[in-house]
Amino acid sequence: VKKPEISIIGSGNVGSHLANALFYAGFTIHEIYSRSLSHAKSVAIAVQARPVNDLTQLDDQSDLYIFAIPDDAIKKLANSGLKFSCAVHTSGILPYDALRPVADQFGSFYPLQTFRKGEKVNFRDIYINVQAGNKSTLQLLKELALTLTDKVASLDDTQKSWLHLAAVFANNFSNQMLAIAYDLCSGHEIPWPMLEPLIRQTLDNAMKGNPDIYQTGPAVRGDLSTIQKHLAMLPGGKQQEIYRLLTDYIMQKRQNHKG
Amino acid sequence: VKKPEISIIGSGNVGSHLANALFYAGFTIHEIYSRSLSHAKSVAIAVQARPVNDLTQLDDQSDLYIFAIPDDAIKKLANSGLKFSCAVHTSGILPYDALRPVADQFGSFYPLQTFRKGEKVNFRDIYINVQAGNKSTLQLLKELALTLTDKVASLDDTQKSWLHLAAVFANNFSNQMLAIAYDLCSGHEIPWPMLEPLIRQTLDNAMKGNPDIYQTGPAVRGDLSTIQKHLAMLPGGKQQEIYRLLTDYIMQKRQNHKG
Repeated sequence: VKKPEISIIGSGNVGSHLANALFYAGFTIHEIYSRSLSHAKSVAIAVQARPVNDLTQLDDQSDLYIFAIPDDAIKKLANSGLKFSCAVHTSGILPYDALRPVADQFGSFYPLQTFRKGEKVNFRDIYINVQAGNKSTLQLLKELALTLTDKVASLDDTQKSWLHLAAVFANNFSNQMLAIAYDLCSGHEIPWPMLEPLIRQTLDNAMKGNPDIYQTGPAVRGDLSTIQKHLAMLPGGKQQEIYRLLTDYIMQKRQNHKG
Repeated sequence: VKKPEISIIGSGNVGSHLANALFYAGFTIHEIYSRSLSHAKSVAIAVQARPVNDLTQLDDQSDLYIFAIPDDAIKKLANSGLKFSCAVHTSGILPYDALRPVADQFGSFYPLQTFRKGEKVNFRDIYINVQAGNKSTLQLLKELALTLTDKVASLDDTQKSWLHLAAVFANNFSNQMLAIAYDLCSGHEIPWPMLEPLIRQTLDNAMKGNPDIYQTGPAVRGDLSTIQKHLAMLPGGKQQEIYRLLTDYIMQKRQNHKG
């Protein structure tokens, strides 16, 4: 079976990392598109592809067109009059059929990781979620993903919305809890790395299964005197409000669990 | 200089881990105390110490008595009539001079980690906080700590209270954010490990410095349409309240930063 030839539209973080990973996995990267030709060139050179800075100049020789461009840019494609044999996007937000208006076969190829320019990415550690309009395209995307990682999933659009919401709690909000801890440490000349081993242990435990099993601290112990002490230490602002709400939530869960 | 001989009072998680770590660091562990003689024996055998189950039977030959027993038990010692040459406790909550009533020299030797029975602990990765009533005892505790780890700190009681409060945010509350994420995943048949790489990356970034620098997500982007969508996905209970409060907090911080 001939390996699909690939065009990558977008030379940003996702596009350039994907181009390199697929190139090193043995795929032919046919074209790299960027609005900026010099940008397209800088990525294209490394993967022996043709740089393109005009979407109408993409040829029709590729078997798969991967769109790693901003969500808004993908929405605008609908009225472009372009047509591709098989096109997928890398967005975690857009519906899987966002490229239906411009492609015979379409789908989504979504790597679940934040990519940063210049930082090396090991796709082996990353989940890739694939969806497609028909079984053969889904099969193609699965095989492509499996050359990069064995962590391949196929959540539908609804599940992806829930995953995205879950990620807000797991990443954004937990990061903000760390930010508050950092504030409290730096405000009292406490070295921030002192908390690192505990934080890492918390995370290691949490990934073993339901993190609630490993919940520790005054709230789950029902240690009201410590809770009162902590509330008194916080100024009357939002940090105190957060402490109170999260403590209530943990205590209520514990109550329900008992009752 | 002769290495201090040590008695360890308490054969629970902290006591047994400390006994082993100090024994392997070359210290003589003179006695291990537990209310249960069989318990004391099980720890004492491994470190060639004498098991004791009656505090009045501790002899006065040790240079240092480390109390790794519950906070309440330490408080009760005050009226015991016991007297030790040099006694320290391992509590992160009690004041450093909690053993003053029963000791000529006193202090606190507090390893910042959750210990679990049976799980191996590498003290190298753990901060130990030392405090003492005088300089020579502080020096003794520092040297002792430095044989186990190079991460030795000397926060005072007030700083320790703030560290404890910071740890509630960094560990307990961030764990609860993960627990909510887990709920949302398992409620929609999303494999929990899908979030792991992102969570680990969030943590790695957060430990580099102020986690606020690495804050991502709809709140810090000011992405109101995603926030509205997420609020609508959550039932009217506490999870929605938490989403709203943390989003407000992050947005407000961002406002203040800009303004």
